[in-house]
Amino acid sequence: MRKGVFGACRALILAVVALLASGPALAEDGYDLWLRYRPLADSAQARYRPLATAIAAPQDDPSIRIAAAELHRGLSGLLRADVPASADAIAPGAILLGTSGDRRIAALGLPLSTLGREGYLIRSVRVDGKPATVIAANSGVGVLYGAFHLLRLVQTGDPIDRIDIRSVPKVELRLLNHWDNLDRSVERGYAGQSIWDWWKLPDITNPRYVDYARANASIGINGTVLNNVNAKADSLTAPYIAKAAKLADIFRPYGIRVYLSARWSAPIEIGGLKTADPLDPAVAAWWKAKADEIYAAIPDFGGFLVKANSEGQPGPQDYQRSHADGANMLAAAVKPHGGIVMWRAFVYAHENPDDRARQAYDEFKPLDGRFADNVIVQVKNGAIDFQPREPFHPLFGAMPKTPLMMEFQITKEYLGFATHLVYLGALFEETLASDTFAKGKGSTVARVIDGSLEGHARTGMAGVANIGVDRDWTGSQFDQANWYAFGRLAWDPEASARRIAADWAGMTFSTDPAFVAPVVDMMMRSREAVVDYMTPLGLHHLMATGHHYGPGPWVDDLERPDWNPVYYHRADAQGIGFDRTKTGSNAVAQYAPPVARQLGDIRTVPERDLLWFHHVRWDHRMASGRILWDELVTRYDRGVAEVAAMRARWATLAPYVDADRHADVMRFLAVQAREAQWWRDASIAYFATFARRPLPAGSPPPAHDLDYYKALRFPYAPGN
Amino acid sequence: MRKGVFGACRALILAVVALLASGPALAEDGYDLWLRYRPLADSAQARYRPLATAIAAPQDDPSIRIAAAELHRGLSGLLRADVPASADAIAPGAILLGTSGDRRIAALGLPLSTLGREGYLIRSVRVDGKPATVIAANSGVGVLYGAFHLLRLVQTGDPIDRIDIRSVPKVELRLLNHWDNLDRSVERGYAGQSIWDWWKLPDITNPRYVDYARANASIGINGTVLNNVNAKADSLTAPYIAKAAKLADIFRPYGIRVYLSARWSAPIEIGGLKTADPLDPAVAAWWKAKADEIYAAIPDFGGFLVKANSEGQPGPQDYQRSHADGANMLAAAVKPHGGIVMWRAFVYAHENPDDRARQAYDEFKPLDGRFADNVIVQVKNGAIDFQPREPFHPLFGAMPKTPLMMEFQITKEYLGFATHLVYLGALFEETLASDTFAKGKGSTVARVIDGSLEGHARTGMAGVANIGVDRDWTGSQFDQANWYAFGRLAWDPEASARRIAADWAGMTFSTDPAFVAPVVDMMMRSREAVVDYMTPLGLHHLMATGHHYGPGPWVDDLERPDWNPVYYHRADAQGIGFDRTKTGSNAVAQYAPPVARQLGDIRTVPERDLLWFHHVRWDHRMASGRILWDELVTRYDRGVAEVAAMRARWATLAPYVDADRHADVMRFLAVQAREAQWWRDASIAYFATFARRPLPAGSPPPAHDLDYYKALRFPYAPGN
Repeated sequence: MRKGVFGACRALILAVVALLASGPALAEDGYDLWLRYRPLADSAQARYRPLATAIAAPQDDPSIRIAAAELHRGLSGLLRADVPASADAIAPGAILLGTSGDRRIAALGLPLSTLGREGYLIRSVRVDGKPATVIAANSGVGVLYGAFHLLRLVQTGDPIDRIDIRSVPKVELRLLNHWDNLDRSVERGYAGQSIWDWWKLPDITNPRYVDYARANASIGINGTVLNNVNAKADSLTAPYIAKAAKLADIFRPYGIRVYLSARWSAPIEIGGLKTADPLDPAVAAWWKAKADEIYAAIPDFGGFLVKANSEGQPGPQDYQRSHADGANMLAAAVKPHGGIVMWRAFVYAHENPDDRARQAYDEFKPLDGRFADNVIVQVKNGAIDFQPREPFHPLFGAMPKTPLMMEFQITKEYLGFATHLVYLGALFEETLASDTFAKGKGSTVARVIDGSLEGHARTGMAGVANIGVDRDWTGSQFDQANWYAFGRLAWDPEASARRIAADWAGMTFSTDPAFVAPVVDMMMRSREAVVDYMTPLGLHHLMATGHHYGPGPWVDDLERPDWNPVYYHRADAQGIGFDRTKTGSNAVAQYAPPVARQLGDIRTVPERDLLWFHHVRWDHRMASGRILWDELVTRYDRGVAEVAAMRARWATLAPYVDADRHADVMRFLAVQAREAQWWRDASIAYFATFARRPLPAGSPPPAHDLDYYKALRFPYAPGN
Repeated sequence: MRKGVFGACRALILAVVALLASGPALAEDGYDLWLRYRPLADSAQARYRPLATAIAAPQDDPSIRIAAAELHRGLSGLLRADVPASADAIAPGAILLGTSGDRRIAALGLPLSTLGREGYLIRSVRVDGKPATVIAANSGVGVLYGAFHLLRLVQTGDPIDRIDIRSVPKVELRLLNHWDNLDRSVERGYAGQSIWDWWKLPDITNPRYVDYARANASIGINGTVLNNVNAKADSLTAPYIAKAAKLADIFRPYGIRVYLSARWSAPIEIGGLKTADPLDPAVAAWWKAKADEIYAAIPDFGGFLVKANSEGQPGPQDYQRSHADGANMLAAAVKPHGGIVMWRAFVYAHENPDDRARQAYDEFKPLDGRFADNVIVQVKNGAIDFQPREPFHPLFGAMPKTPLMMEFQITKEYLGFATHLVYLGALFEETLASDTFAKGKGSTVARVIDGSLEGHARTGMAGVANIGVDRDWTGSQFDQANWYAFGRLAWDPEASARRIAADWAGMTFSTDPAFVAPVVDMMMRSREAVVDYMTPLGLHHLMATGHHYGPGPWVDDLERPDWNPVYYHRADAQGIGFDRTKTGSNAVAQYAPPVARQLGDIRTVPERDLLWFHHVRWDHRMASGRILWDELVTRYDRGVAEVAAMRARWATLAPYVDADRHADVMRFLAVQAREAQWWRDASIAYFATFARRPLPAGSPPPAHDLDYYKALRFPYAPGN
């Protein structure tokens, strides 16, 4: 009879659920990111339910309380069941959380000692004779990371019945860099204004701050630089320190520290000093007092990020001091508190006539060994500036005595803003897998970054955030994948971008293999597509002035030579490309000899980097058998075709995605298709004026003449 | 037995509902505005259900389809029942929608002929012998307005069983003015950036555009000026016309037309002409062609709003032409398409040494009768600029041959931004109820605005929007009430602000009288509170430079005299206040004689306007028996005390409001309490340097000295 009652109830309950679920509040707008926790298929629910009957967690650690709450939220949603969290009872199928200090965890005799502060174990065990899953670590944050890992397994349909996972981050500092200004504009931000509402902080906070912390913790990000590297001194004044402290309080239990970008000239601008000379004792004393003030408000403040003597920013060179002098002075100020200084190597100077690609290396290489032990030098992935493709930065492997941290750009300044679907996991992976040959074969950039190559304990990876107030956080659904992939690769720089894409797609949309396989394929190919339709064969920095949206290869009127696209492509009647071999700028010599040899020889350089390193004749014969001009046009055409293929493919995937997000992505792909064509047409129209050759057979002429493309203006492009 | 089954089910269903309702997606973040549609109390659900069994609506009119969908959504939520919408069947308790052209509506013989295009009837009727509720109008939009009215009745618990409502808007143009820039910044915006994502339009639209239209339609707003009156010519270029057209397409079925602010010098800036002289035939031809281009994309384009020769904007006076010359030339361009020109009277000139309060009147009064019949002059509520309190603008009643439309500011530029709780319904009502005496007693501003005083058919009311991308739309929960009240008062300028507040509070939070009564009382008092703690007794424009946040009565260093607070308060050793009587600027003479006499005489002027019109001795005896200085301080204290009372009162209302929004409002009130004190302390510290008298007994000294307040800086205040 009871069964009959429940049978009868079932239909009613489903009707009620359907009614509630049809409400507007459950619309899929992307806000939930990869932490959607929508119900799994019935069969999967049945499989997991016995393995997730309850959550047993001590209540004294705030991070573990959050881990338990997240598991409760996630499992209750995924399994459509109430998975209660409590402190004590262990039922069969319970999930037990705890640290090495807990009695029940200690009794399990798990090998926790090598996990460090942030690593964790997830294991199927027996507790008091009952089957259970334990998530154990040496800190509450480690447990929280493990909880998110377990949730991911359930979200993506991985088995958890005989589980034995050990995970330890390979990189110490896994940071977002927000180029967010105090007026809430975001330099190179394409997802609306800054999520930091500085004006209302610290009194009024946004629930989004917590969801930001959840999302970051779920992928292991453990620090955030709140303000733009083009910094204002105001961020170091008392009111703004109080605002940052409020954010730090919110983020702390999620294992996220706050950092600030420091304006080099702050001692003058807000300190009333006459100088910012790093060797002036008054300047050092000012920074020390400022650090003390910050740490009084934020005891676990991470430290400073500094952009100095670059693109107009002040710095120690204004006083004839070196970058090391500057970094070390700041480092001394934060050292008593355990803080660090991240000193950016992205420098190039007005006065320097050298190839811009050479300058950071020339400036920093001689300083190797001169930095204090709490300084880490932050190097962009390539020597120019976040192009669709760049060879790895020659500094990686070239400063063995100095910890170098990676700076990737998650926000797509040069890759079609948030409008174009480009999965950056593929780009990040390509750089990390590049072999510097600094200590022979296998000296990958990943091994420079994780410290294993040169034995550095201090390691880091920073990503310039693509986050804003847009409801979907990142300006498009697919740009969420780039935030996600960054976090996962910062945890493990040798992880597979393809595997990460599969996790993301499964958590974000659907775990159906008929969906995941084509979407992952599309994501992995999307990066090559943008290279092809914007800057194929090693071309770079051809974007329009200032905002960097759309093609501007003809631009030659900017104040500084190395801000002009013509500086980079050097097209002429004979050919195209930047000669960086010894007949040219010889930037290639900055790489280790095996790399320099390969890149410096037109016969061995990979075609993808050809025009980065060589000025090549239009009739140069390529691997395809085509001459360079024909190959160039073919690549442009290939990029356009690839976007058309993405569009067609996504259209077939409607059955797997809610209507709102599916349509949303379709609209973005339509724009991308139009703009890929624009890039191709404008670039070909321009380069044809040098090549003076016909287009290869089957390749249509540009839709407009060159003047049409040159006349396009975008005065209100975002992020500029 | 079946009953037993359902009894058993009930508990389970409630558990499932509770589980789902506990999810994050149902969090009350304010996004739903006053259209929340959360379930009513059980007893109310039971009362309404028989009266809302189904929705019968023809499917051929897009506005009626929207009305039916909104009723379905609203009633299904409120009554926790599926209220189906269909085209045909009339069941007992159905809600029948339709226009005069529908057979079933015509058969009812309703008096629709006097409703105009936008009015509606809601009546309890019998259709085919069955009891029903009919919503009838002469247009689909009229039906939509009626549907929102019916929903409001259900939301607020009003009976609908014997209903007989007739509603016709008294004002033709009920418009929002967005001071939104093309880069998404919002001048005087305190709710995040512009909801118009110009960059992504027209290809990519935000679901928010639809919710914006729903919210506006629900309060009768029928037009929106998309861009800032400080306009850029780019908004008139083809790409931006296409973007505006996309918004127009979305808004059209909601009865909302789009308008654009026109940059006077656009013919030069984007037209390639040498002049923008309105009497130059080439200029007129350019605007005519531009209007044709806009109407080709937006057939129901509303017309232009123009800020000319004011605060640095170009205008016809640059060519020695009058405002009428300028307005009429533009009016001729849009006239063939049925468009209008709204010409702002907010002008004051660098060169003019006259009292700024006089200048708009002096400029426009002589032009009465000289404007084309599709021009309407838009006048701010007061002669200065959206102060916490201003006497009504002397132009109201002074230009009988010219239709004047009201410009209110919904965004709180001078009233504590979105942070301070100030219900502007009380301010709007005070202005509208003011008697101009233009045609004897009863010549209220409301009757100027609704056209009844001078027989104008063209009427309008504009509100400068307080809308942005913040999740709660307006930067705070209570600022939603100001958007709401503006719409309701635009529909009926003689409506009661108190009654509107009650509707809003009931729809937005709770209809419990134990909640509504104290909240409405608090809202109605909140406006007097801000007057008291910022600018009591007729003081005005004492806000800090530029951003207008916080006190700056001491500011005297701005380029233009009339930008300085000292220009307005004129405090000296003898007294304080601006003499606008005949011994001073004589601005008072711009009012009709009975008003001028009352305001011009220190014995009869209301104390609330005292220092607006008179320079008054510190020892002047006030109605309270106190001298002016003591009264001034007492008012400041009263304002601070009122905010403390609001805080205490809101704290007691927690049982009626979800925890998130209750806490949110508490945090805002805490800031307001601190800042009311700041205003009071800084103002008293400053004025005491002139009055040189002790504070009245019991009034504490300012917390800091004057220099402290003068030194405060807010370089990143929003909206500036």
